Amino acid sequence: MNELTVTLDTASAVPLYEQIYEYIKSNIQNGKIRCGDKLPSTRALARYLEVSRSTVELAYEQLLAEGYVESEPCRGYFVSQIEELYQWKPAMEKPKGKQCKKESVYQYDFSPRGIDLNSFPYGIWRKLSKEVLCDDKAELFSLGDSQGEYELRETICRYLYQARGVNCEPEQIIVGAGNDYLLMLLSTILGKAYKIAFENPTYRQAYRLFENMGYHTVAVDMDVRGMRVDRLAETGADIAYVMPSHQYPLGIVMPVKRRMELLKWAAEKEERYIIEDDYDSEFRYKGKPIPALQGYDREEKVIYIGTFSRSIAPAIRVSYLVLPRPLFEAYHDKCRFLSSTVSRVDQLIIQRFIQQGYYERHLNKMRALYKSRHDVMVNSLKPLLKFCRLSGENAGVHLLLEFPAGVTEEELVGRAAKSGIKVYGASCYDIECAERKNATILLGYANMQEERIKEAVGILSTVWEDCRLL
Amino acid sequence: MNELTVTLDTASAVPLYEQIYEYIKSNIQNGKIRCGDKLPSTRALARYLEVSRSTVELAYEQLLAEGYVESEPCRGYFVSQIEELYQWKPAMEKPKGKQCKKESVYQYDFSPRGIDLNSFPYGIWRKLSKEVLCDDKAELFSLGDSQGEYELRETICRYLYQARGVNCEPEQIIVGAGNDYLLMLLSTILGKAYKIAFENPTYRQAYRLFENMGYHTVAVDMDVRGMRVDRLAETGADIAYVMPSHQYPLGIVMPVKRRMELLKWAAEKEERYIIEDDYDSEFRYKGKPIPALQGYDREEKVIYIGTFSRSIAPAIRVSYLVLPRPLFEAYHDKCRFLSSTVSRVDQLIIQRFIQQGYYERHLNKMRALYKSRHDVMVNSLKPLLKFCRLSGENAGVHLLLEFPAGVTEEELVGRAAKSGIKVYGASCYDIECAERKNATILLGYANMQEERIKEAVGILSTVWEDCRLL
Repeated sequence: MNELTVTLDTASAVPLYEQIYEYIKSNIQNGKIRCGDKLPSTRALARYLEVSRSTVELAYEQLLAEGYVESEPCRGYFVSQIEELYQWKPAMEKPKGKQCKKESVYQYDFSPRGIDLNSFPYGIWRKLSKEVLCDDKAELFSLGDSQGEYELRETICRYLYQARGVNCEPEQIIVGAGNDYLLMLLSTILGKAYKIAFENPTYRQAYRLFENMGYHTVAVDMDVRGMRVDRLAETGADIAYVMPSHQYPLGIVMPVKRRMELLKWAAEKEERYIIEDDYDSEFRYKGKPIPALQGYDREEKVIYIGTFSRSIAPAIRVSYLVLPRPLFEAYHDKCRFLSSTVSRVDQLIIQRFIQQGYYERHLNKMRALYKSRHDVMVNSLKPLLKFCRLSGENAGVHLLLEFPAGVTEEELVGRAAKSGIKVYGASCYDIECAERKNATILLGYANMQEERIKEAVGILSTVWEDCRLL
Repeated sequence: MNELTVTLDTASAVPLYEQIYEYIKSNIQNGKIRCGDKLPSTRALARYLEVSRSTVELAYEQLLAEGYVESEPCRGYFVSQIEELYQWKPAMEKPKGKQCKKESVYQYDFSPRGIDLNSFPYGIWRKLSKEVLCDDKAELFSLGDSQGEYELRETICRYLYQARGVNCEPEQIIVGAGNDYLLMLLSTILGKAYKIAFENPTYRQAYRLFENMGYHTVAVDMDVRGMRVDRLAETGADIAYVMPSHQYPLGIVMPVKRRMELLKWAAEKEERYIIEDDYDSEFRYKGKPIPALQGYDREEKVIYIGTFSRSIAPAIRVSYLVLPRPLFEAYHDKCRFLSSTVSRVDQLIIQRFIQQGYYERHLNKMRALYKSRHDVMVNSLKPLLKFCRLSGENAGVHLLLEFPAGVTEEELVGRAAKSGIKVYGASCYDIECAERKNATILLGYANMQEERIKEAVGILSTVWEDCRLL
């Protein structure tokens, strides 16, 4: 077996040892050198190839490390037995994902999940990032607290108390990279033995996530006050997922009576909980913000979730979960060892953003901006209000138009589309066929400038007016 | 009901409407104003309190919005019926978490999960952050691709191919905020009907996570080549979680024969997979890196997971998952709608860090640094090698010392601790009682300077030498 006729290329960038290693490896792979064959001694091969012995030794060591050859003391190197029949098939063709970016055919988009990004405080963000990174502390790049840094949790805690009436300690807060992640974490904390009730219609992303995580889910119809607690009680659900501050998509603000009913339902059994998704509670245009359901809870029943992704920017992947005590303990047992999903740099930027008053200023600015778009919107819609009913208009960044009987959602969406305007039918958010008599359209205005709102609503008024007369 | 004797404080920072609202609300809550009571008309109350009518209207609207009162057309405002008996209990005492930071009593810590943070390229990171943020693109703060930005995935793809022999397309990569998150995501993709086999001992964090997510798990003993595939086959497991490049904690590099056996096992049934955790494959001190198991896979069986948290810094919460085709499709069905957990800013920084060659330079620097600590370590350990066996020393950032029979792990760890040195017993990583005859100690050197390694190993040699003579 001295006939290892490696053709060495001394001009190549590939080191000589690697050329020898590659040659032997591929010959083992294609069966030219067989299992059990003895390799030449390093000395012999070095002489034969006219290279230094250490070069050959390096090649052999690599083959040894990867398991292609074995060394037997005092006897030399032998080719290992590998599962040759199995391995060396050609690779399967790889899935070629389509990297197609859909060209939008719409000139106007009333997306209810939009956000105005032109108002993002780039300058301040840049300044804070720079400050945070300038501190040059190694600590900042070490792994932090699994729940999120204590100082950030304290800051969030204070903010939630003042702005949302949420009653909690920093110990109950978990900071995570977005709502989806925190809901996955919550699922690990809860375990699977729960049946979760969703408002119908609802925010489908959370619903689909729980479905895909293997939960038993159920849809509960709503009335003008939100989820019907009588219906909820009939479903046998253990957990209710609700958005009491501004329901998505219906825009309902749950009145205090319904909130009490819901809390009472939860208190009836030990293992019942309410998940309160406070997704866009920051925006309310009349009076003071309505406190979170969590603030009324005296029985440790509400799991509260909120996010900076909507109130600052979608790319700020920071959300927070407030756990009631019973689950707080389960969290410690089951998830405390998991690493935080938000870098300490980002945590520190957000903390300073809030502490130095920028968050409040940003919210006020956005509230004013959205309020002004909201007012333009409501005003422009007036011609339609002769025959449509407006709702959900006191909060959030979208409102709803309910049409008289006879008009279909499909017709409305289709006519808008033909005029280059994207609008959203409420039925898209149904998880079960809802008890909705009339076609209802969602109109989000967060990411549309006032002039464009006027233009688009003007067009809609015309095409929809027609539609009614059909 | 005109006797609403609100004491208004015109000097207060609290607006008048809010004082009226608070007064009425608290009187509804404590039962002084009862369900069904009619509130005075806005006109009457305004006159009585000597405030403008719009102030009273604002207060009533807030009460209305929160559901404390209801308005009946042409009749006025009435107090709603709320579940008063339930609500107004005093809040339960909140869990007071202990914010205790344990004072370390150790002077030296041979943590096998340590990382040298002094070498983190702060300057470059700061520069890249600044560049990225200076671009001032609103796009950067909008929600990006759920899998991670395509350009970053392309960059990771190229890196993985060159450095780790991983064969994949950007379409198969999912970028996420850390391994824990990606394993949760994987769990959603897979569903729960799998039994997962772990090496025994193993990286307990992944094991505990799968356990807590409700998976059936099983421990499979190892020999010098890694997980025993014959034992694995007996367990009835569908998925094997392995670390072939440098097993944690045993430091075993799985030879090609065992890799082939493992792949063959996976190919025998359709729903079998291998999770390859390539956690510290970047560090190898002899020859070239050993390619990932994924690179040998021709049957779409290997789920590959890697992270920048170990190779750059723990606070960089960016990991990547490479999915084989069958699961790639399940991902699209079940998880494609989830939002990315890594901000686009961080994604762009990492992308530039790799593309502009900083990552390679950083890795080379770290490799040299760790190699030099490794050599000092191996050298300092010589006195102990008279009676101990060294292993796992060719890769990673920790090595193992196996002691002769009769010495217990407890004794070794205890004696080290008494001398102010923290070392880690291999049994801490067992998930089942392992077939380990002799006490084995892990020594991580990544976060210890050479002088300190010499000092600490010097002390260990003395106290452990004694220990043997007992």
